[in-house]
Amino acid sequence: MISWNNLDTLTSFQELSKTKQVNLAEVMSGENGAERVKNYSVPMAAGLAYNYAAKKVDDEVLAALVKLAEEAQLADKFKALYNGEVINTGEKRLVLHHMTRGQLGDPVTADGVDKRTFYVEQQQKIADFANKVHAGEITNAAGEKFTTVVQIGIGGSDLGPRAMYLALENWAKKNGTFKMEAKFISNVDPDDAAAVLNSIDVAHSIFVLVSKSGTTLETLTNESFVKDALKNAGLDASKHMIAVTSETSPLAKSADYLAAFFMDDYIGGRFSSTSAVGGAVLSLAFGPEVFAQFLDGAAEEDKLSASEEVLKNPEMLDALIGVYERNVLGYPATTVLPYSQALSRFPAHLQQADMESNGKSVNRFGEPVNYPTGPVLFGEPGTNGQHSFYQLLHQGTDIVPLQFVGFKNSQIGTDVVIEDSTSQQKLCANVAAQIVAFACGKEDENRNKNFEGGRPSSIIIGDQLDPKALGALLAHFENKIMFQGFLWNVNSFDQEGVQLGKVLAKKVLAHETDGALKVYSDLLNI
Amino acid sequence: MISWNNLDTLTSFQELSKTKQVNLAEVMSGENGAERVKNYSVPMAAGLAYNYAAKKVDDEVLAALVKLAEEAQLADKFKALYNGEVINTGEKRLVLHHMTRGQLGDPVTADGVDKRTFYVEQQQKIADFANKVHAGEITNAAGEKFTTVVQIGIGGSDLGPRAMYLALENWAKKNGTFKMEAKFISNVDPDDAAAVLNSIDVAHSIFVLVSKSGTTLETLTNESFVKDALKNAGLDASKHMIAVTSETSPLAKSADYLAAFFMDDYIGGRFSSTSAVGGAVLSLAFGPEVFAQFLDGAAEEDKLSASEEVLKNPEMLDALIGVYERNVLGYPATTVLPYSQALSRFPAHLQQADMESNGKSVNRFGEPVNYPTGPVLFGEPGTNGQHSFYQLLHQGTDIVPLQFVGFKNSQIGTDVVIEDSTSQQKLCANVAAQIVAFACGKEDENRNKNFEGGRPSSIIIGDQLDPKALGALLAHFENKIMFQGFLWNVNSFDQEGVQLGKVLAKKVLAHETDGALKVYSDLLNI
Repeated sequence: MISWNNLDTLTSFQELSKTKQVNLAEVMSGENGAERVKNYSVPMAAGLAYNYAAKKVDDEVLAALVKLAEEAQLADKFKALYNGEVINTGEKRLVLHHMTRGQLGDPVTADGVDKRTFYVEQQQKIADFANKVHAGEITNAAGEKFTTVVQIGIGGSDLGPRAMYLALENWAKKNGTFKMEAKFISNVDPDDAAAVLNSIDVAHSIFVLVSKSGTTLETLTNESFVKDALKNAGLDASKHMIAVTSETSPLAKSADYLAAFFMDDYIGGRFSSTSAVGGAVLSLAFGPEVFAQFLDGAAEEDKLSASEEVLKNPEMLDALIGVYERNVLGYPATTVLPYSQALSRFPAHLQQADMESNGKSVNRFGEPVNYPTGPVLFGEPGTNGQHSFYQLLHQGTDIVPLQFVGFKNSQIGTDVVIEDSTSQQKLCANVAAQIVAFACGKEDENRNKNFEGGRPSSIIIGDQLDPKALGALLAHFENKIMFQGFLWNVNSFDQEGVQLGKVLAKKVLAHETDGALKVYSDLLNI
Repeated sequence: MISWNNLDTLTSFQELSKTKQVNLAEVMSGENGAERVKNYSVPMAAGLAYNYAAKKVDDEVLAALVKLAEEAQLADKFKALYNGEVINTGEKRLVLHHMTRGQLGDPVTADGVDKRTFYVEQQQKIADFANKVHAGEITNAAGEKFTTVVQIGIGGSDLGPRAMYLALENWAKKNGTFKMEAKFISNVDPDDAAAVLNSIDVAHSIFVLVSKSGTTLETLTNESFVKDALKNAGLDASKHMIAVTSETSPLAKSADYLAAFFMDDYIGGRFSSTSAVGGAVLSLAFGPEVFAQFLDGAAEEDKLSASEEVLKNPEMLDALIGVYERNVLGYPATTVLPYSQALSRFPAHLQQADMESNGKSVNRFGEPVNYPTGPVLFGEPGTNGQHSFYQLLHQGTDIVPLQFVGFKNSQIGTDVVIEDSTSQQKLCANVAAQIVAFACGKEDENRNKNFEGGRPSSIIIGDQLDPKALGALLAHFENKIMFQGFLWNVNSFDQEGVQLGKVLAKKVLAHETDGALKVYSDLLNI
């Protein structure tokens, strides 16, 4: 029987709070440090590994974390989720994004259909469609091939798919699976759509309109923007657009689209990269086989997340350590630092996935919690970040836990040897150096050049960022966020905090305002 | 006489700490709220205005902030800085980036020359060079015009110029001043340079190598990368490259470059957008007149920053409120949210400018401080952010002060009317709505739909993001950071925290490691 309890009511959390804090600089020094790096590592899918040697944990803390995982019933709660219980209690919905990439448990029936079958069918429909586009069987009105795909969506319909596209663009070009360039229109700022439209050949572009409800203001506005552009170019918009939406949305059966592919209410926008939301644009850009490999990587990682053995479950362990850092050590923010230019927008996607899921002040019963929940999350790729905000991370007054990602090999493979090392080696040398610099620091008589150390980090290491590794990486963070939501006892799958702004914006546009809002509206010429 | 004291030793700071906290939801309601929005506004340069109505200040807090500014001698310290005192005490350097855009005070002589004259000469040399490139007087070896400029630089040589380029790209295209596309290579990840090189026509590209010291590892490595590509294309690299560096660097007089333009040690990388570092690439991309307008906007804002009247000095006021939020109210992070897609990378630039400047734990005498200094800073453009991390900002357990930016008009001017409003009106309506939603909140019996409010924000409002407005906006944040450094009594102009990582990375590449670092190196195949 599952019981949902606040973190601070758990005996194991009280015990965790009493463990002795690890002196990171000390344990990471010498041979002891070398042993930690070898031992504090968990295999992930696709050849990745999660290494937490530079976290402030030791056997005592880890034992307390295992107890916490057990008392909080993390494995059981995930099981309930993938077996189809109503985990999104606020919106009374199942949470089924894992099912877009595999069947972890029992078959789940909803809306009168088996959901795994439903998601696979949508993927198959997308694959058929994409193959026909690539083969020139689906073309523009002039019978010419489409050369560009443009995703129109915002939030989860934008950040995840865009980050995944950028992550695999160069890999696909190198490996001969690159089919067409993808662009993204998201912001209601008219300059966003206008700039993208100015940069493409609309006559050879296919647009993917993504809105689960079919009512997202930004997305429908940008659709009109695009339709105007197509019309002005003398083109029939309905021959250039497909929709990704729910079956019940107004877009689902419209003649305005070449085709419609479906997601449903059981997949939150920020967890939709492995659904049709990511599937359409990524299959068009790279081919359905690449998208399938991406799903395989995620499915394999999901299986590891389902393990009850905490120390062999990378997502559960990462989640637990994060909660320890947030709720015992008191660190207010975290940063994701991929040493891979291809992951340049991966932190922006995680920023949504994490902050929108767990940035909550009430538990799943609507009662205020007495402890901090989701932290601020930010990040940029290394080595760029080293020349930007790392100063604060090394010597600032706040400690910010770090999540590194690194790969042994580059994607394109073009490289240059300077001073006896390749750029890829320099990249990897930098991330290794940073972990130790943050953990161990370095004393200096000049306090301005002194490094205290004691700044914890983890690293996920892989061979190369390929579709499967990317899927595993995505699933890692998605599932980590889910487990943290279980620990904080919040509903990670709704987002009521975005509603008030929408309501007030409508009032402004209807000129139904007074007081401060009226004056701001006047100042902004609305 | 200037005296440098820690924040917590100032009587006025103790007094500020005792002021009554403003109930933001209350003061922003009704007619009182409307009056605040009208009154709590300071004019900036280029028609911008800084509005702080939604900050937790009232006449009592403002009076305390004015006293703090006076006791901390903010105006005198800025005066000392622009009159050429050694404000960067750690590195024993003057701090002269303001002089790249104007002469605020006395002439300053250093290295035997008048520095204002020196910076103007460099700008003139760049303008002449850019004009010749645009006129086809400087061409590739085949006598063909250059069509693309590629900046090679990292940190301050990348983030600022890149953010400024993106901010003005569409404006320049719309206003007929767009000369050539700019690209940027920064990361030592070989996939960064390879992808950029694959995306351009190298035969018609001119590269700007930017390194003050001429020794930045990433930049020199990427230079070799580019030279290889030029050589492989049968081209003479020296006919495709210019350098931006200091006069004493190895790059300064090299025959490897078509031309060299100079900056100096008195301009930190993160404050170099208005120097030759931004000047070369922006003048080539948009023409020197556009760069000159950008400098004019910054110069005008600098003049406002020099005002001793705190309540008429937008930068001083913003800095003071930020310190109040950080050191009295205890907020650990801040976010910059431009409602302008063109400013998509402006927060990334500010992330460096702010976190690298003030992420310090020791004062300018090398003594540890007992209070928090620079906060974590992050941001993404609105309305995108609303569909991403705003959930946490509205309903999370931490309060994160917000810095909005909004413009009445778009840059491109193409727009569409949906439901009686343009996209630009929707964009502006959203930012107005967000300010009020964050400040006032909204009670709901369902605690999950409840908004506590009391979340402070400011907004900078302008007519349109043009070069002058961009210059003013940049100078605003640069000077805000400087004043905060004065308040925290830290040296905002060095960055010793980036050194240790560099040293350890070299050891890894030289295979001179042991312990944990050796094992990480092995895991990453170095």
